[in-house]
Amino acid sequence: MSQLAASPVAVLDRLSHVSAQRGAPSLAERLASLDRWVRSDLVEFERELDVIPRGGKMIHQAAHHLLDLRGKHLRPLCVAMTSRFGEGFTERARSLAVAVELVHSATLLHDDVVDVAERRRGQPTASVVYGNAASIFAGDWLLIAALRRIRQSGVEGVLDRMLGVIDEMIAAESVQLERRGKIAGAREDYFAIVEGKTAALFRWAMIAGARCADLPASSEAALERYGLHLGVAFQAVDDELDFREGTGKDALADLREGKITFPLVIALEREPSLRGRMEALLAREVVATDELSAIATAVRNTGALAATRTLAEEHVQRAIDVLDELPAVPARDALVTVALASLERQS
Amino acid sequence: MSQLAASPVAVLDRLSHVSAQRGAPSLAERLASLDRWVRSDLVEFERELDVIPRGGKMIHQAAHHLLDLRGKHLRPLCVAMTSRFGEGFTERARSLAVAVELVHSATLLHDDVVDVAERRRGQPTASVVYGNAASIFAGDWLLIAALRRIRQSGVEGVLDRMLGVIDEMIAAESVQLERRGKIAGAREDYFAIVEGKTAALFRWAMIAGARCADLPASSEAALERYGLHLGVAFQAVDDELDFREGTGKDALADLREGKITFPLVIALEREPSLRGRMEALLAREVVATDELSAIATAVRNTGALAATRTLAEEHVQRAIDVLDELPAVPARDALVTVALASLERQS
Repeated sequence: MSQLAASPVAVLDRLSHVSAQRGAPSLAERLASLDRWVRSDLVEFERELDVIPRGGKMIHQAAHHLLDLRGKHLRPLCVAMTSRFGEGFTERARSLAVAVELVHSATLLHDDVVDVAERRRGQPTASVVYGNAASIFAGDWLLIAALRRIRQSGVEGVLDRMLGVIDEMIAAESVQLERRGKIAGAREDYFAIVEGKTAALFRWAMIAGARCADLPASSEAALERYGLHLGVAFQAVDDELDFREGTGKDALADLREGKITFPLVIALEREPSLRGRMEALLAREVVATDELSAIATAVRNTGALAATRTLAEEHVQRAIDVLDELPAVPARDALVTVALASLERQS
Repeated sequence: MSQLAASPVAVLDRLSHVSAQRGAPSLAERLASLDRWVRSDLVEFERELDVIPRGGKMIHQAAHHLLDLRGKHLRPLCVAMTSRFGEGFTERARSLAVAVELVHSATLLHDDVVDVAERRRGQPTASVVYGNAASIFAGDWLLIAALRRIRQSGVEGVLDRMLGVIDEMIAAESVQLERRGKIAGAREDYFAIVEGKTAALFRWAMIAGARCADLPASSEAALERYGLHLGVAFQAVDDELDFREGTGKDALADLREGKITFPLVIALEREPSLRGRMEALLAREVVATDELSAIATAVRNTGALAATRTLAEEHVQRAIDVLDELPAVPARDALVTVALASLERQS
């Protein structure tokens, strides 16, 4: 990774350079082109997502409370783009795109209970509106609905891979749970959590798309690595956003809960005295906003946010690099665009 | 059902009569014979259950906290007995027996969080010892472990059936959740909940055993009906036990939580004024023990426990009746014994 520049702008220049080498236009033009290219896929995806039954039951309402708030749909987008290496966003690809969003939503419903989270996507969480019980069962319901879809798609191997991925996600949740409030803050823990909790599902989305496109095993392996790196980059940007105001997320929510984020890992490495302050903060029932802000400032002062940005850029770079093994078709360009754009998201 | 006697003894006589017709000995002798016959299967089952990884992680500890307390293992027993219509408790049958216990345990781990339950199997719940978060993720973990085992068993069709069954279980949980604290107490609700929450998994255990034994579809359908009726009988006995002291369960726990049980359904039908008293009870933050006991006495005074016993006996009878369609081999006798014994359990 030493070839990567340390400052955001330099690395973005490098990324632009990479894009230019591939004869690609600016990111804005790239995004406009991507939008035209996959818009109909996403419309079809959303239509299918709406078909998930809306029974009158509380668990269905809790599930739709989250689904209707519409996330970024980045994982389904990965399935759609990758399926276009082959015959495109067919019925079975759509079904797998819906499944990956349902699994993601199921984990959010359980996470929000576990984290006693109050807001998600700018709104009160399902657990706040419908209660913990409804949120737990709604998560169970979406998980099973997703697995049934994957099963019914008939696409070889993707169900086994999903069961493995969910296992990785739970293991990562477990590590995160153990570390909560302890500020172990070790780099290895951070990557174990991110790779399991976030990147694993991106990997699956890529595999699912690859299988729908009937790509050879070597291409699928490359796309899976793309998913891994995109996932890590995505999470690093997410971590960075926790330190910004007005993003639709609750600012400093991760910090308040003592979740390991990359800025915190870096800050603790560079400024070990922060550990004691963080531990004292987490030991309290109610966290004072000014103390939280003071710690956030101390984290920023270590240069941890720039380091986090660099991490994200490195992984975007690696995601783009593995695509060299794929044929130079519009699907590959689309994946490059999404990787580049992941650095620019504001929420 | 009108041919069934109203009092427990009469129906037991009738059941003994049925047994005698089949040339079977008394229940005690039957149980001793069953014990000799399936003991080695259950030892193998427990050995395999112990193989479920005991990582150092809190979710693994939470899961094993429940698994180590050893339930009745009635669902795995159903798989074992039914597999013996064919080549017996083979590796794949064992794997499915473990899977059904894992799914059952997963639902208990989530239920205990939802119900804020403090005790299970005479011990503090995993959610009390390890926390709600660990209990939720432990449930997710066991569910996925079960599905992976079912998948790996390679037994045709059982994974799809299990996904369907879990869906039924969640729907039943949802109905129960909606009714909580409302004392709707309608008979239809009761049966919808019992059939989904309890009987569905018994049905699956019977199907799994039947598939391992390579039984024809008509036999499998009969065994599935056996599972349904055994499940309803099992739950009715469970409901009855809520009104007894010293069973290892928290006496009146269901009543305190306002769960619909069959005694309550009957009592509300026979003594409508109880509805207001129950609603008043549930509206309070803390339920006074004497008021709870008074309502329990009022329920008993309606004859609701005898009616519940009759319900259990009717379903045991129906479970035994459907076995007529199966060949008269030891496996069939074993299923008759288990059905009869389910009426006698004390915890």
